[in-house]
Amino acid sequence: MSKTDHFEAQDPDYAQRVRNSFSRQGPMHHLGARLVSLSPGYAEIRAPFRAELAQQHGYFHAGVSGALADSACGYAAYTLMPRDATVLTVEYKMNLIAPAEGDELSARARVVRSGRTLKICTADVFALKNGAEVHCAIMLSTVMCLLGKPDGPPR
Amino acid sequence: MSKTDHFEAQDPDYAQRVRNSFSRQGPMHHLGARLVSLSPGYAEIRAPFRAELAQQHGYFHAGVSGALADSACGYAAYTLMPRDATVLTVEYKMNLIAPAEGDELSARARVVRSGRTLKICTADVFALKNGAEVHCAIMLSTVMCLLGKPDGPPR
Amino acid sequence: MSKTDHFEAQDPDYAQRVRNSFSRQGPMHHLGARLVSLSPGYAEIRAPFRAELAQQHGYFHAGVSGALADSACGYAAYTLMPRDATVLTVEYKMNLIAPAEGDELSARARVVRSGRTLKICTADVFALKNGAEVHCAIMLSTVMCLLGKPDGPPR
Amino acid sequence: MSKTDHFEAQDPDYAQRVRNSFSRQGPMHHLGARLVSLSPGYAEIRAPFRAELAQQHGYFHAGVSGALADSACGYAAYTLMPRDATVLTVEYKMNLIAPAEGDELSARARVVRSGRTLKICTADVFALKNGAEVHCAIMLSTVMCLLGKPDGPPR
Repeated sequence: MSKTDHFEAQDPDYAQRVRNSFSRQGPMHHLGARLVSLSPGYAEIRAPFRAELAQQHGYFHAGVSGALADSACGYAAYTLMPRDATVLTVEYKMNLIAPAEGDELSARARVVRSGRTLKICTADVFALKNGAEVHCAIMLSTVMCLLGKPDGPPR
Repeated sequence: MSKTDHFEAQDPDYAQRVRNSFSRQGPMHHLGARLVSLSPGYAEIRAPFRAELAQQHGYFHAGVSGALADSACGYAAYTLMPRDATVLTVEYKMNLIAPAEGDELSARARVVRSGRTLKICTADVFALKNGAEVHCAIMLSTVMCLLGKPDGPPR
Repeated sequence: MSKTDHFEAQDPDYAQRVRNSFSRQGPMHHLGARLVSLSPGYAEIRAPFRAELAQQHGYFHAGVSGALADSACGYAAYTLMPRDATVLTVEYKMNLIAPAEGDELSARARVVRSGRTLKICTADVFALKNGAEVHCAIMLSTVMCLLGKPDGPPR
Repeated sequence: MSKTDHFEAQDPDYAQRVRNSFSRQGPMHHLGARLVSLSPGYAEIRAPFRAELAQQHGYFHAGVSGALADSACGYAAYTLMPRDATVLTVEYKMNLIAPAEGDELSARARVVRSGRTLKICTADVFALKNGAEVHCAIMLSTVMCLLGKPDGPPR
């Protein structure tokens, strides 16, 4: 799909805000996922292979690809949101295009349209094996900005 | 969406075959997921809440809803496949329509169209809390039947 | 997918408002489309077969199914919007599950979740032939309510 | 999304085969659509604005964007199919990201994964106005190759 527009973050502390939110995601901990790259409108998340993340043929489970890509889209969008907002996935669509076989999975997401309320994002998922990359999934998603709602559990 | 057609399983041992495949899914173990209901063209999978499955607001993570619904669609489709076949998700689309807040998550999937190669499935995800159900996600997916490929890792 | 919740229209004149908007849709005129049923959270649109609506095998073109289903979703959602609002499709996903062969095409849409800003809708498309119905497509879509924007061209 | 792989057409006469199929599409005639660019794994279709293609605000109707993008995906995929095959859309998902306001609409599709049976495609839709382009829609779709089925109506 088309190149990402150039985006500027309106919150100068966006990176810390995104990392704080990422650290509150239980399933990302379980996956061993790391937020390895972040810029305005862009996020990359990686997770290493473990047998318990595999589906019946020994590849990364589609649910893992989906969770990483959804999180990458959400955080790519969240970089562009104001300080006083939280992020919510409205919907996503994913095509699984090759077996996710490898040592590590990388989900790279970018915002293609940044509206005030809705951000439209795409993500590509790659399986990394012996230094090579296989493009194994594509996501197209809609993410919502909720203003005035804290990004954390109610206290 | 429309009512499920009435389907008949061509493999009389479909239930055992589906349960064997389900038991090989690492992430389903991690989620504590159970295949609680199965009939030709239908599957229900449930998982109990645990803090490590939560997103930043304390609800079930969207990745958990996605993984359960995708698996339920895959196994609903797999009930209708011949013995000598394995199942592959081509793509899915999910709308998250309410916070997945509850003690348990239930994904109920059914086949709406059973072609020889492709099965089209829908799933509804419910959050169960104090005996009540909240409809929290909807999935529409395409599942492929791969003939002559074993449903398990290569030996 | 799950049964439609029971919805009430907040605008008592919703039906006239929807019909006025429908009448401004050029492509619906071209398709010979009629809004044949309307209630809060529900809309049905039908169009008769004509050779110029066919794809290469002589069935209704997928673009026709898509346009009817998208419009039906939009108007199902629009029934639930306030008087001072217009309707916008955010995204839709459609599976084509059987050839759309028949004398007439019917798209039946309902709202499954009615948020203040976003309405999530599903539609089923049926091909009608000699009194029988064939379920030929399923749509899952997200529709946005734009408050304070007129539902018509700028003057 | 990611760059298109380099594809080679297995049918040396693919361009003529695609153009013949395109000419059998009734709705493409109505839209005044032209297949303006074609290469292995790629197709661009354009249609000029006419009032009867507009939705209620005077922009291109989403149904028009959908029909052009779906056709562009189908024909991008069809370039890679063998001579003795026809093409069928399994499903598509489209996000509408900006008003489709302009003199002409252009849908540019490419294959991102070319399996034997299924081709996964993306399309970007642009509205052209006074020499500038606005990116107004994104599609992600699954297209099927049906071997041994003629690409035309039964005689």
